Amino acid sequence: MTRLLLASRNAKKLGELRRIVEAEGLAGIEVLGLADVDEFEEAPETAPDFEGNALAKARDAVAATGLPSVADDSGITVDALNGMPGVLSARWSGRHGDDEANLDLVLAQLSDTPDDRMGAAFVSTVALAHPDGTETVVRGEWRGHLVRERRGTNGFGYDPIFVPEGGTRTSAELSPSEKDAVSHRGRALRLLVPHLRALAG
Amino acid sequence: MTRLLLASRNAKKLGELRRIVEAEGLAGIEVLGLADVDEFEEAPETAPDFEGNALAKARDAVAATGLPSVADDSGITVDALNGMPGVLSARWSGRHGDDEANLDLVLAQLSDTPDDRMGAAFVSTVALAHPDGTETVVRGEWRGHLVRERRGTNGFGYDPIFVPEGGTRTSAELSPSEKDAVSHRGRALRLLVPHLRALAG
Repeated sequence: MTRLLLASRNAKKLGELRRIVEAEGLAGIEVLGLADVDEFEEAPETAPDFEGNALAKARDAVAATGLPSVADDSGITVDALNGMPGVLSARWSGRHGDDEANLDLVLAQLSDTPDDRMGAAFVSTVALAHPDGTETVVRGEWRGHLVRERRGTNGFGYDPIFVPEGGTRTSAELSPSEKDAVSHRGRALRLLVPHLRALAG
Repeated sequence: MTRLLLASRNAKKLGELRRIVEAEGLAGIEVLGLADVDEFEEAPETAPDFEGNALAKARDAVAATGLPSVADDSGITVDALNGMPGVLSARWSGRHGDDEANLDLVLAQLSDTPDDRMGAAFVSTVALAHPDGTETVVRGEWRGHLVRERRGTNGFGYDPIFVPEGGTRTSAELSPSEKDAVSHRGRALRLLVPHLRALAG
């Protein structure tokens, strides 16, 4: 059994990675979360891009635990905001993790933006770092547009105002399995599967 | 005497344009502000760039008054925010013209950004539109970096946290004449002088 650390305390992310590992038949891999290993200091996310933050988190986890480690950095890029909130998605309002304040702020900033310029994309970058120093980074994107009124109660973050391309429901109105199948994080994690398969030996 | 409309209610901008017109010896031009003409409806600033907003405001002013008209759109572009707040500088916090809230928000968003990635630039775009349809747009930039503590009481907007390149004082610590000589708006207005000279005949 190969142990793989997901450098996250987010139960939803842990569940998603475990579902994918199981669905892909990677029976040789046991996925651990940060709650399953000795505590270590997590550095702030200071990189200017998702890739840099994901890699830094994965490297820190390898250095602290000696385990092959996966870390992600995700967010929403809004066309009319030049790709921001981006790496600041979870702290856009200045209050880390305050989804309501972050949504309110983005919608206020877009209040004069015409409806046909509300394009956006969810982006997920996932890094896999090994104790031998090899590293892999994958990126999943999910294009769509923002709406001005929240709809739906699934998901978190910007899900209630994001309508994926080709649909009419917000991503907070999709079921978890519908979302896994097409979301940025689902896409990124599936891009990682060949590398996990190598890990499973 | 040729009348020229500055499509603004900002007394500081009006004063600056009048000083430049006088300093350049353009005695044939009388600069009016919006307070000096019949009221007309001003459209919201919906363009994705400074140039688009400045041009739209100048065109609207020509259409409403028949006078050659100057309009500006200005703001600050922060490197770590992909060039935002940009056209949203005056309404970044969602509250138009609330300088304190806008500064607080930018500083909160940059709280994890390393000191060596605090680069920023003030940008001023000025458009001149004529009743015959000819248009000119000029752009002035002023590079520098942001600091985390406000300093100085001159100016407005982001001046208290902007340190121009080559200096140590914030632009709110410069005197108005020091600022005019090197600022984004001063640069843009001086680029407009040859076109104003043609107007003065």
